[in-house]
Amino acid sequence: MTEPKGEHALIDWIRRRTGEAASVPIGPGDDMARVRLGEPDALLTTDTLLEGTHFRLDEASPRQVGYKALAVSLSDCAAMAAEPVAAVAWVALPEDARMTFAEALFAGLLDAAERFACPIAGGDVTSWTGGLAVGTSVLGQPAGIEPVRRGGARPGDVLLVTGRLGGAGLGRHLAFVPRVAEARRLARAANLHAMIDLSDGLSTDLGHLLRESGVGAEVDAPGVPVSPDAERAAEADGRTPLAHALSDGEDFELLLAVSAEDAARLARRPPLGNLPLSAVGRIVQGRGAVLLSADGTRAPLAPAGYEHFRGKGTG
Amino acid sequence: MTEPKGEHALIDWIRRRTGEAASVPIGPGDDMARVRLGEPDALLTTDTLLEGTHFRLDEASPRQVGYKALAVSLSDCAAMAAEPVAAVAWVALPEDARMTFAEALFAGLLDAAERFACPIAGGDVTSWTGGLAVGTSVLGQPAGIEPVRRGGARPGDVLLVTGRLGGAGLGRHLAFVPRVAEARRLARAANLHAMIDLSDGLSTDLGHLLRESGVGAEVDAPGVPVSPDAERAAEADGRTPLAHALSDGEDFELLLAVSAEDAARLARRPPLGNLPLSAVGRIVQGRGAVLLSADGTRAPLAPAGYEHFRGKGTG
Repeated sequence: MTEPKGEHALIDWIRRRTGEAASVPIGPGDDMARVRLGEPDALLTTDTLLEGTHFRLDEASPRQVGYKALAVSLSDCAAMAAEPVAAVAWVALPEDARMTFAEALFAGLLDAAERFACPIAGGDVTSWTGGLAVGTSVLGQPAGIEPVRRGGARPGDVLLVTGRLGGAGLGRHLAFVPRVAEARRLARAANLHAMIDLSDGLSTDLGHLLRESGVGAEVDAPGVPVSPDAERAAEADGRTPLAHALSDGEDFELLLAVSAEDAARLARRPPLGNLPLSAVGRIVQGRGAVLLSADGTRAPLAPAGYEHFRGKGTG
Repeated sequence: MTEPKGEHALIDWIRRRTGEAASVPIGPGDDMARVRLGEPDALLTTDTLLEGTHFRLDEASPRQVGYKALAVSLSDCAAMAAEPVAAVAWVALPEDARMTFAEALFAGLLDAAERFACPIAGGDVTSWTGGLAVGTSVLGQPAGIEPVRRGGARPGDVLLVTGRLGGAGLGRHLAFVPRVAEARRLARAANLHAMIDLSDGLSTDLGHLLRESGVGAEVDAPGVPVSPDAERAAEADGRTPLAHALSDGEDFELLLAVSAEDAARLARRPPLGNLPLSAVGRIVQGRGAVLLSADGTRAPLAPAGYEHFRGKGTG
């Protein structure tokens, strides 16, 4: 359930229309929905990859597209520190697609399914005159802890990020590792107040976390872990590596908020082996995020994600 | 999980690749997947509606498309006599779509969600350069009985069909009633050996049921309940009303197999009120289906559905 890029107006409209269903304790607007279904509750997320928007077939093989289609939903599981159980997949195939193309696509889905122990339980394959579209819905369950939501960050919390950010479009976005195991390791090592996966970029996804939590944040520019890909991307387009790290998206790393004590403990005993866990800022009272540069200047850190309805006077 | 039209080669390939996962007692190839998730098991299905293939925006309003998108997955729940619990929805929006269009689409989804007590728990909305594509995944649970599968029909069983068939493309396909309540009423009144919903047409969906059950069938032409829409469609194109009833698809009625004793009991005490429940034939040993005409002639009843890979020498 990648937060629809900028479709807040639509999400808010849906929330108003649906109200609260007793059978859905967590509804639209978090990484996964939580649904009452006996014991334990079920967690459910869905994601869509669209040709031209999320991948291009001249740079991505069908196998990579299949892998990514499941990995993005598994990343939502990670964002809740949940355990994936099974998935369903759907594919809208271009009319001229051959059987070998469809097989390669499903081989990629099955790669991710095997690697992250989330079997493909069913699906739907249809052809049409349009481009390639692939989606998955992943069913998960709480992994021995309460699912971590977006809305629990509190003033004084430290913001942490896994991995390094930016430049994922150079190729990393097709082969990233959803942080399913890492999220559960973090949840065992600390009390995670809030978490989200970085699908739309740190600036945008931090905005989701802040809005759901009703708080603000200060981000320390020197603390943001910049990927070597962000530096390559910066060389190519003249923007700064930091700008890429803050706004490129598709990193599928985790952004989390923990108490200062827990942050100190995690720094003393890094729970993720070689994967960096960087303190990038702190939660403050208020609204929105501010970027603090090394020289002490403050600037608003606005979400950089594309917003479909924003340009139309409706969002 | 509308059986992909003709993608048997692909489904078979996926089944061979996936093997059997202990956590997925019912995998690809039935109306819903069954997933171990505490008590009770979860049932999961996914379906996709594609512009040009499943609807045209010059004949269907966005609200109708939204309604249908959830109703097709609810029809899969009906086919297993299962109880829908919650759904997630995803939408690939054409770039030029306005907020009012998206709202109307979701209003249709929410209509179906409310009417069939299946709240929309989350979703994914993205825009792209392609046409409108809408999908849902429905999470369900067994409704006090074992989920009814496609593979349980036995020689001697009677084949029953709800409602009237054919000509759904004239408009019924946009406003059909998924037979969720009816399926559960049938399951309380009889031991349902096998069931499937008629998404691809009687001839095609019967083929799925027969293949999964490892049996054959005789269909009595005079017993097939022909919709008034099938007669209108026949007037327009010169084919017979029966041909439309057998092959048009998108009826979203139920086809089921019960013992002869149960069929007689259901005939004495019709459990569905005004909705017809028609005996259309019987299960026999062997493979495939035969159509028996009123004059006693026998002809093979071949699946009429479109098969994507068949024309390419791969299916």
